[in-house]
Amino acid sequence: MRILGIDPGIAIVGFGFIDKNGSKLTPVQYGCIQTEAHTPEEERLMHVYEGMVQLIDKYKPDAVAFEKLFFSRNVTTAMSVSQARGVSILAAAQRGLPIGEYTPMQVKQAIVGYGKAEKRQVQEMVRMFLNLQKVPKPDDVADALAVAVCHAHSYVLNSKLNEVLKK
Amino acid sequence: MRILGIDPGIAIVGFGFIDKNGSKLTPVQYGCIQTEAHTPEEERLMHVYEGMVQLIDKYKPDAVAFEKLFFSRNVTTAMSVSQARGVSILAAAQRGLPIGEYTPMQVKQAIVGYGKAEKRQVQEMVRMFLNLQKVPKPDDVADALAVAVCHAHSYVLNSKLNEVLKK
Repeated sequence: MRILGIDPGIAIVGFGFIDKNGSKLTPVQYGCIQTEAHTPEEERLMHVYEGMVQLIDKYKPDAVAFEKLFFSRNVTTAMSVSQARGVSILAAAQRGLPIGEYTPMQVKQAIVGYGKAEKRQVQEMVRMFLNLQKVPKPDDVADALAVAVCHAHSYVLNSKLNEVLKK
Repeated sequence: MRILGIDPGIAIVGFGFIDKNGSKLTPVQYGCIQTEAHTPEEERLMHVYEGMVQLIDKYKPDAVAFEKLFFSRNVTTAMSVSQARGVSILAAAQRGLPIGEYTPMQVKQAIVGYGKAEKRQVQEMVRMFLNLQKVPKPDDVADALAVAVCHAHSYVLNSKLNEVLKK
């Protein structure tokens, strides 16, 4: 199965496609959708939406995993990023794709086994899981791959759980 | 010109179409798009987006005015409403419509002439401007009509300003 991981944003949307064959994870494509600062909000939202639609139509994922936003302070930034997250989710939902959502803590837990792990540790583990030479830049891309890997791991756990429950 | 006013939300999106002929304002259609609680977020976002698209295609506004969210406390609610606001703006932007945004204070200032006016005062003024028998319910609908009226007034002011500046 192919998983698209998304680190939502209005200036930068990180994306990472990975293929999961059994327990083997392979990176397919990763990068980011960027929008220009100082352009009207509605144009930036259209750009994010169209970028998502193009990526989904080109790489045809079977599922999309979004990082959940966690903001404690700047409500204005939280609202702006949430608007962009909304149009990103819309693009995936309109294609009928199953959607997963994970908090940063869930991502860390799934990848490092410790919900308060350092960013560097998470990035290094993702690099190893995906057999990449370097940690992708910017952080938004590494974070998107991390949420994709988190979804892959959660998928395995959920499948095993369902098997156990069926018995 | 026809103006669509929107009071954004994820559970209820208030909408109000008004026609502006010179200084005369006429209500065309108003109501709300509602989404079911306890349904997945992505379905609610699709419902809001599709509702917006249908309204725009049916009543063909020349401009859309959105209330700006102003949250001081609940960041979770702010993020959820912002996601829905994002897909609502997207629907208008994809049709190439000019978009206006007004804070609650700007709406009050434009309608009552006082930025800290009571909600009841605003609703009563909107009712009078639009020659309605009653204040529309729920509040989301009244708020949507208020932001449409605010846009109509701002439009007049901006036009006059432009005339003066051209001289």
